[in-house]
Amino acid sequence: MTLSQSSFKKIKKIVGTQACTRKIEDLALYAYDATAITHLPDAVVFPENASQIASILKLANQENFYVIPRGSGSGMTGGSIAIYGGVVLVMNRMNRIITIDTKNLTAIAEPGVITKKLHDEVAKYNLFYPPDPSSSAFSTLGGNLAECAGGPHAVKYGVTRDYVLGLEAVLPTGEIIQTGVQTKKGVAGYDLTRLLVGSEGTLCVITRIILRLIAQPETVRTMTAFFPDIKTAITAVTAIIQQGIMPRTLEFMDQASINCVADKFETDLPTNANALLIIEVDGSLPQTATVAKEIEILCRQHHAIETKIARTSQEAESFWKARKSISPALFQYGPHKINEDIVVPVNKLPDIVQKISELKKKTGLTMVSFGHAGDGNIHFNIMLDKRDKKKLKKAEKAVEEMFDYTLALGGTISGEHGIGITKAPFLTKEIGKVELALMKKIKNIFDPKGVLNPGKIF
Amino acid sequence: MTLSQSSFKKIKKIVGTQACTRKIEDLALYAYDATAITHLPDAVVFPENASQIASILKLANQENFYVIPRGSGSGMTGGSIAIYGGVVLVMNRMNRIITIDTKNLTAIAEPGVITKKLHDEVAKYNLFYPPDPSSSAFSTLGGNLAECAGGPHAVKYGVTRDYVLGLEAVLPTGEIIQTGVQTKKGVAGYDLTRLLVGSEGTLCVITRIILRLIAQPETVRTMTAFFPDIKTAITAVTAIIQQGIMPRTLEFMDQASINCVADKFETDLPTNANALLIIEVDGSLPQTATVAKEIEILCRQHHAIETKIARTSQEAESFWKARKSISPALFQYGPHKINEDIVVPVNKLPDIVQKISELKKKTGLTMVSFGHAGDGNIHFNIMLDKRDKKKLKKAEKAVEEMFDYTLALGGTISGEHGIGITKAPFLTKEIGKVELALMKKIKNIFDPKGVLNPGKIF
Repeated sequence: MTLSQSSFKKIKKIVGTQACTRKIEDLALYAYDATAITHLPDAVVFPENASQIASILKLANQENFYVIPRGSGSGMTGGSIAIYGGVVLVMNRMNRIITIDTKNLTAIAEPGVITKKLHDEVAKYNLFYPPDPSSSAFSTLGGNLAECAGGPHAVKYGVTRDYVLGLEAVLPTGEIIQTGVQTKKGVAGYDLTRLLVGSEGTLCVITRIILRLIAQPETVRTMTAFFPDIKTAITAVTAIIQQGIMPRTLEFMDQASINCVADKFETDLPTNANALLIIEVDGSLPQTATVAKEIEILCRQHHAIETKIARTSQEAESFWKARKSISPALFQYGPHKINEDIVVPVNKLPDIVQKISELKKKTGLTMVSFGHAGDGNIHFNIMLDKRDKKKLKKAEKAVEEMFDYTLALGGTISGEHGIGITKAPFLTKEIGKVELALMKKIKNIFDPKGVLNPGKIF
Repeated sequence: MTLSQSSFKKIKKIVGTQACTRKIEDLALYAYDATAITHLPDAVVFPENASQIASILKLANQENFYVIPRGSGSGMTGGSIAIYGGVVLVMNRMNRIITIDTKNLTAIAEPGVITKKLHDEVAKYNLFYPPDPSSSAFSTLGGNLAECAGGPHAVKYGVTRDYVLGLEAVLPTGEIIQTGVQTKKGVAGYDLTRLLVGSEGTLCVITRIILRLIAQPETVRTMTAFFPDIKTAITAVTAIIQQGIMPRTLEFMDQASINCVADKFETDLPTNANALLIIEVDGSLPQTATVAKEIEILCRQHHAIETKIARTSQEAESFWKARKSISPALFQYGPHKINEDIVVPVNKLPDIVQKISELKKKTGLTMVSFGHAGDGNIHFNIMLDKRDKKKLKKAEKAVEEMFDYTLALGGTISGEHGIGITKAPFLTKEIGKVELALMKKIKNIFDPKGVLNPGKIF
């Protein structure tokens, strides 16, 4: 299934000479994502519309080559890597926001739109697109849909899937389809839209997206709370959720995350704090004032050392600085990161935190945890040098132990990063044989020759 | 594909003699739904667990008979009618609420639970399950999931699909599967959960449901606004939505609905009102007070004759009385109802209202419209005696014209009632050939012998 010279010539005819390349230095730019995994594709193509993609996929079926769609390559599970070679479709030329419909609170956009660009554009009309993966400053809507991305706002507003009304997409066999609706409701036929969202680029190439928007909340209030240890912090989280309070974000950082950021950047984090929460509430001015106060009281009741409510947007930004600095700061501990994305029922958070601390002691590995506590969604990272095979083995065993424990607690091995290639070996731990067989059959009816994004999920 | 005596004997063994019947007087009770369509099944079975259903479906595949799952039979499109005979599975013995998890805000329930029962039970813990189809006092969760039911709350809170986290279901081939998660997030593998929700009992029999709950809003404020005509009422609706106000319900009734209710029941509706809105807002006490006031002002700016904010829950209930009386009151105008469930983008509501008024004039038929204006979701009813073939033909032509116009406005032919059998002839107007072929292939991998709920959707 390598790309022949003659197939590449035909692709050139479809997209134009300027929009495709086989130069090794170009291929290298599209060989990786946010995992450390790398594989050179045979060619890179920059399509500008659905019809070009349809032609390429028809050709792929005729001439047997793989096609791998790709946004900004910020995926966490290797979903956009051409692990068996093939043609990488870089979607970033299809980056138009086609309409922002202020009357019906919808937007139509192409998949290459950077998520933050959409945030900013709709904000001009006082509208709000809640999904906000941490990568939103550079990740694309198409990638967000493919993985069903979440982010801090998910605790109140849900994930990407909850905002997609309809799609235009190209099937692996080259037909262009329309799914879903442009309206707030719709139940005609099977829900193809939500089958495609989260299918990790294995069932179609998304070419147009109809999104639901909501009104921008009147005010956002940001606060932070420091705790003597992660257990008290997590107990505060469960107390907030059980109180029926619905913050807009409810993020946590453990001691290792705080130290990691403090070691790398200048911060004014209190030195006796071993865990912190970053909490935002939104709504009307008096409402956010009341709720922030309630949260402050709950945090103090649960042994917070200090709580602060931001008085200015600059101060709010400074609260977020630590959280947003974790990912870049992590690499001081090792060139490689094993990044997991487990979710447990919120009341099981103390158990999982306990488990992480046990694993840390047992293995002596550097483990850093942070994430979306309000959703029970923990990003659990092991930093290491993968060339140290002994450590790597230990780390892999630790990850497997975490997955088993997560599932035993009623959780899932992937909250918002997808399965891709890095979690594929573990999928059968969560998904049963019959269910997996159904998924494979679905893949097969969409893509009988298996040309689209092979080797992912299963 | 009729049920043989020997197959029925085997079913008896599976569920016990008391839990199945072939008596004609029993069959008649499960031969209809909320449409006027009737077909006697060959047998009626009352299973009590997933394993019995699995055995029946395995038998159906071996001995070639149809199986049709059924909740309370309140469906609007004939989804639960045994149009080709077969065994009706009445799910109402599987009616346990298994857990209400106040720590993680979830519930696990069997499909035969009456929706209102769940509303009431979770309310005891100050929790809220928003989906509220008008049938909720008697319809089941299983039926709600099968159709992806909506209801007045959908304008703020979304539809059934948005609250389903995971499922246990029996495949048409008899395997029991688990889909989705028990957590707030989860993206492991394809989204089978949302493929099954809204699949109208054609892909599986749902046997257990994991639902997401939210906190009960602090207060609900109910108001009503009367308008000189439907156009001004609808303009007020679009103004409210465009203002970014998110009421909890935003219902409308046209002149015919008001008259219909006034003719049948005692009401204190103002005699010069030709359209009314029923609006609810929820949230904190001061917040609902402010928003209700804002809505009142907007309504008056859009020529409301009168607006009232309920001061007591009794008064609020009296506002709802008219809306809830429409369906029973309609039958004074004819023994049969053609009930449609179209949705258009909210800013296209004035166009669709204009179209209805034109069709009314053109055909001379009795047409009554009401519904979920905030979602652009109109229940458009034609009342007639179907034995009057000339009228029936006119009505059918009018419905088709409405569907065409709805689709031309960017709408859908089914907002929350499904396709079933009544809308199946029109599905190709909305769903393209390739998309429909995909859906049929999905049906085929789930149900290769076509034993489950045949003749629906396609």
